[in-house]
Amino acid sequence: MRKIVVILSILVFTVISYSLADAEVKVPRDYLKHFKPITMKFVDNPDNPVTPVKVKLGKMLYHDPRLSKSGLFSCNTCHNMATYGVSNLPVDIGHKWALGPVNSGTVFNAAFYTAQFWDGRAKDLEEQAKGPILAPVEMAMPNEQAAVDRIKSIPEYRKLFAQAFPKDKEPLTYDNIAKAIAAFERTLLTPSRFDKFLLGNEKALNTEEKKGLKLFVEVGCASCHNGIALGGDFQKLGVVKPYNSQSPSKGRYDVTKKPEDMNVFKMTTLRNIERTYPYFHDGQVWDLDEAVKIMADIQLGITLKDDDVRAITAFLKSLTGEIPKDALQMPVLPPSTKDTPKPSYD
Amino acid sequence: MRKIVVILSILVFTVISYSLADAEVKVPRDYLKHFKPITMKFVDNPDNPVTPVKVKLGKMLYHDPRLSKSGLFSCNTCHNMATYGVSNLPVDIGHKWALGPVNSGTVFNAAFYTAQFWDGRAKDLEEQAKGPILAPVEMAMPNEQAAVDRIKSIPEYRKLFAQAFPKDKEPLTYDNIAKAIAAFERTLLTPSRFDKFLLGNEKALNTEEKKGLKLFVEVGCASCHNGIALGGDFQKLGVVKPYNSQSPSKGRYDVTKKPEDMNVFKMTTLRNIERTYPYFHDGQVWDLDEAVKIMADIQLGITLKDDDVRAITAFLKSLTGEIPKDALQMPVLPPSTKDTPKPSYD
Repeated sequence: MRKIVVILSILVFTVISYSLADAEVKVPRDYLKHFKPITMKFVDNPDNPVTPVKVKLGKMLYHDPRLSKSGLFSCNTCHNMATYGVSNLPVDIGHKWALGPVNSGTVFNAAFYTAQFWDGRAKDLEEQAKGPILAPVEMAMPNEQAAVDRIKSIPEYRKLFAQAFPKDKEPLTYDNIAKAIAAFERTLLTPSRFDKFLLGNEKALNTEEKKGLKLFVEVGCASCHNGIALGGDFQKLGVVKPYNSQSPSKGRYDVTKKPEDMNVFKMTTLRNIERTYPYFHDGQVWDLDEAVKIMADIQLGITLKDDDVRAITAFLKSLTGEIPKDALQMPVLPPSTKDTPKPSYD
Repeated sequence: MRKIVVILSILVFTVISYSLADAEVKVPRDYLKHFKPITMKFVDNPDNPVTPVKVKLGKMLYHDPRLSKSGLFSCNTCHNMATYGVSNLPVDIGHKWALGPVNSGTVFNAAFYTAQFWDGRAKDLEEQAKGPILAPVEMAMPNEQAAVDRIKSIPEYRKLFAQAFPKDKEPLTYDNIAKAIAAFERTLLTPSRFDKFLLGNEKALNTEEKKGLKLFVEVGCASCHNGIALGGDFQKLGVVKPYNSQSPSKGRYDVTKKPEDMNVFKMTTLRNIERTYPYFHDGQVWDLDEAVKIMADIQLGITLKDDDVRAITAFLKSLTGEIPKDALQMPVLPPSTKDTPKPSYD
């Protein structure tokens, strides 16, 4: 009789334990080898070392609308610190109400990318920052010199450039404007609960999120969305079925003209993806659930169940990090002088 | 002989003292009765008490581009915290690249004004904040309900409105959107060195600035630019000679249609005037020296000497205050939901 009680007890205990374990969801640790946590304060660049004075200067330039022809747009207009480095518009509005061809990506964690822009035409943030200032449908400065002239007419900027680029014979150049902005952007990192989980805190994710993470790996999302940014490399959009795009962009093909680069895009990071809607390079999809379904369908050929979509988006929301307080502190911009070229509405 | 030495010594001492006194410039204390220092942290309104949660909510709304039809413009676009509450443009660019009829005034210290807008058509900041959101050439929301619908679709806003307006049966209304924004603006005060001087610190202004202050009173500037804001009441522009304006605005006349209100404007504050260029309601004058000369000429019938202009602008620059750190700290905006009406480019 006693033996039976013991055996029964063990049986009951085992069943309860199993249920609890199932309810808690274990993510095999080898699933995590796809990912890397954010552990640094910034992403340095040997060719453009991140220094406090350069970051300070870069933040000022990032917020300065004088880098646009009209004086309306700063980097922050389309890559707003208050909304996780995006504008939350399908495509952005630029000079004289021109609309951009593609959605503006977030600047947060963009320092981890292999290349910049959806078509990867800039190799790093330093090169990227030189684009929008001169793009006619964005900030529309007529040329590099016009941007330099605006900034150079302001004594406080001249002083800061000399401090930020002490080895340069001529510190205030268009390249250095871009380098300062990039140095600031290299500090825009947002560690999240997922990083705590990666670093060993099992409780950092809840059951639903762990279920989502397991699915994310098992279904195949992590075969592309991996590494520290869960994105940032190149990948064809529409591996199994074509993506029905509203944008003229053909991705990397526009740069290389190689047939194999047709519709190959630099993947956006999934960090803060909950906040960086609308989705895809054309910004046509507003709902994260829908974006996940589309990706599973056209990239992996899988029709996800609604429950699984919910779990995966729950996991994706655990990638929402905190915007650093410094990034949210706006600079006070130095005043223009008599020599500052005036803004133009045309 | 001894007597002569004593008398000579006294004479020399007197001459030296006199010279020193002259170099230092004394501002008669009764000159200062024209002015009042900023001593408060905010300007309260019994009909819209300033509370921390209302200010927090107001700052979020102030930075939220979802209050514009296109999703491009927030209050901060034209009244930028980084540039002393203005855009530094002659007139502002609004929906579909429309240009406004008048220059955008600073929000800093605007809580001290008798009325709001150049033509005084709003009695206070609460009424003012309701204007630009609906103005077709500014943020262009089609109606009040459209603004409420955007904000109401966001759970975090619903919660904050309930906290900020706990006595209201329906806390999230267009009036309360404006009240929250106004409560934030009521905290945008910038005490300066001039306030220290008014409060008794003689060293807070240098010799040139004191000379300028004396002239400012003696020439007659202070007969209009007085009080805590050194401006903010109504006054005719062009008392002695007409102002050659580029703007269609006839000032207060546009509101009252009374002949005596022709070209009567709500004077802007002179606090931070160095930073809130370009000047006048049409934003046509970029240089502070020139603005001072024009005012002396057309308002007082005086041609100021260059030295005197320099002294007066030196004094005016002592009115540049420090932007409160809280005002520069951007909020993190809560995300839209499936129910949030989408932005429109048209």
